[in-house]
Amino acid sequence: MKDKYIQLSHGGGGEEMNQLIKGMFFSAFDNEVLRQEEDAAVLSLSNQTAFTTDSFTVSPLIFNGGDIGKLAVAGTVNDLAMMGAQPLYLSCSFILEEGLAIETLGTIVESMAKELQVSGALVVCGDTKVVPRGCADGIFINTAGLGQLRRPGISAHQIREGDAIIVSRDIGCHGATVLMNREGLELSSDLQSDCATLWPVVEALIAAGIDIHAMRDATRGGLSAVVNEWARTAGIGITLDEKAIPVRDEVRGLCELYGMEPFDLANEGTFVLALPAEQAEVALAVMRHFSCCPEAAVIGCVDQRQIGRVLLTTPWGSLRYLDAPQGELLPRIC
Amino acid sequence: MKDKYIQLSHGGGGEEMNQLIKGMFFSAFDNEVLRQEEDAAVLSLSNQTAFTTDSFTVSPLIFNGGDIGKLAVAGTVNDLAMMGAQPLYLSCSFILEEGLAIETLGTIVESMAKELQVSGALVVCGDTKVVPRGCADGIFINTAGLGQLRRPGISAHQIREGDAIIVSRDIGCHGATVLMNREGLELSSDLQSDCATLWPVVEALIAAGIDIHAMRDATRGGLSAVVNEWARTAGIGITLDEKAIPVRDEVRGLCELYGMEPFDLANEGTFVLALPAEQAEVALAVMRHFSCCPEAAVIGCVDQRQIGRVLLTTPWGSLRYLDAPQGELLPRIC
Repeated sequence: MKDKYIQLSHGGGGEEMNQLIKGMFFSAFDNEVLRQEEDAAVLSLSNQTAFTTDSFTVSPLIFNGGDIGKLAVAGTVNDLAMMGAQPLYLSCSFILEEGLAIETLGTIVESMAKELQVSGALVVCGDTKVVPRGCADGIFINTAGLGQLRRPGISAHQIREGDAIIVSRDIGCHGATVLMNREGLELSSDLQSDCATLWPVVEALIAAGIDIHAMRDATRGGLSAVVNEWARTAGIGITLDEKAIPVRDEVRGLCELYGMEPFDLANEGTFVLALPAEQAEVALAVMRHFSCCPEAAVIGCVDQRQIGRVLLTTPWGSLRYLDAPQGELLPRIC
Repeated sequence: MKDKYIQLSHGGGGEEMNQLIKGMFFSAFDNEVLRQEEDAAVLSLSNQTAFTTDSFTVSPLIFNGGDIGKLAVAGTVNDLAMMGAQPLYLSCSFILEEGLAIETLGTIVESMAKELQVSGALVVCGDTKVVPRGCADGIFINTAGLGQLRRPGISAHQIREGDAIIVSRDIGCHGATVLMNREGLELSSDLQSDCATLWPVVEALIAAGIDIHAMRDATRGGLSAVVNEWARTAGIGITLDEKAIPVRDEVRGLCELYGMEPFDLANEGTFVLALPAEQAEVALAVMRHFSCCPEAAVIGCVDQRQIGRVLLTTPWGSLRYLDAPQGELLPRIC
């Protein structure tokens, strides 16, 4: 690339855009389908294909443990994985602000290419738009994903009374990290985003024959949003044990400082699982083989105490409602 | 919706976002798949599925003959149609700026729902992000699309010497209209964007047995970008007859005023076709049944005069190169 900064001409449909696409995107994402350069990628898919999309607007673009590129791949791949689908193909669409450093874009694209390797998914089509300075903030990325269902029927509607609720690791790291990086806080810690591709651990759970009822990554709205949506959709009650929910001291400290609850903080590589209680120990054993699930734990169970609501047993033995978050804690978290 | 303007909480993953999605998006795009509300839509697809994506950042959001919503549906549907694929499923991802009028969003979403009816495609998954005031410009929309190939093998690589080149209508209306609306020009004309869903006319061409070699909608970079890409990709020459290329007087006038060429202006419902010359008349007869192809015309042919280049016979009989556009004529045209 002869230019150092993105110019409007990089989105103009002419030679400059061609150079950006061929020089940077095609070389990072290279594969047979992309090389066809048609208006659309032609794929072989089955009658059990999962399809999802996400746009990413995180600020700052680069944070402890990840960047917007890693997030854009892991986020969409995880939405497929949560349906029990093996991620196969991604589209990738960039909205770039005039003046973005091409070096920054290169770092982000390389990060995407690296994260794709974790699941083996391929970027097979894309789009690039450039908007004038001030009309966007650096870079926004949209990815849509296609995956092949390996374990059909995973759904909140499958949750049953008596199911155990598992969380895959300590919660709130992504939200806390972005907050810390944004506010320029220097904590004497190695706190970093949990941003990770979850397909390998999901694949292992399926291979181990775990009867996954429901599975969801706890992104915006955090753990509270997932369990409240489940309680409402499945028409059941959920009771969680606060002591059992892993939270790092740094995350807890930031929450106290900003008046937030770790349950509401966004995660980007943390998922919640509902499954028959008798399979919980086997599932935990499978999950703990993966570096993205260091503290997988049973955190509660499905019951009929309060239909459509989530109860939290506090460390003092009292009960309170854990509601879905309201308002906006942290804009541009993902 | 109780709010009049988009707030950060509409993207927060909590109750407010839920209300926006259920209250506006689900009611406009309602279908069986969407109603499942899972992390990903589960679809039945074939082994000849086309997959494409586009982000839309057009300014102004509403222009003569369309708006960003119509564009976001027609644009992605057309990318599928140009591959000979019947558009089936779309994802839809919104990036909204805090403060956007909910009424404006409603107008755009209704426009999307209406345009979907032309091809019968369904929105089956989506995403909503809200960024703080000043971090985006009103609304950006990404759509990714899936279609079933009805006529495989359409590709620039199929273009042969002797092929006729057809354009589906007069060129440059979208670019000229957006320019006119943006500059606040009041022309004494009904000039409007050509923005349209092209699947019905493509379906008719396939049904008529037309041996379509290549087909592409002349969006960013206009007619010049398409024919230059074809000449390069197919390793052939193309000679166009300037007199045969339909251009409206209003578009020609605006081009003279701004020092542009109509060949370089973006279109959003105009396509270029390469096919055996002996089928050109039949194809034109089919196309003229559709209101989106009022002036379909043969504008040139494929030859070996200048391999990889496009020649233009001027009205005075002289020859000049028609090059791919360089730089950026009109940012945020689509």
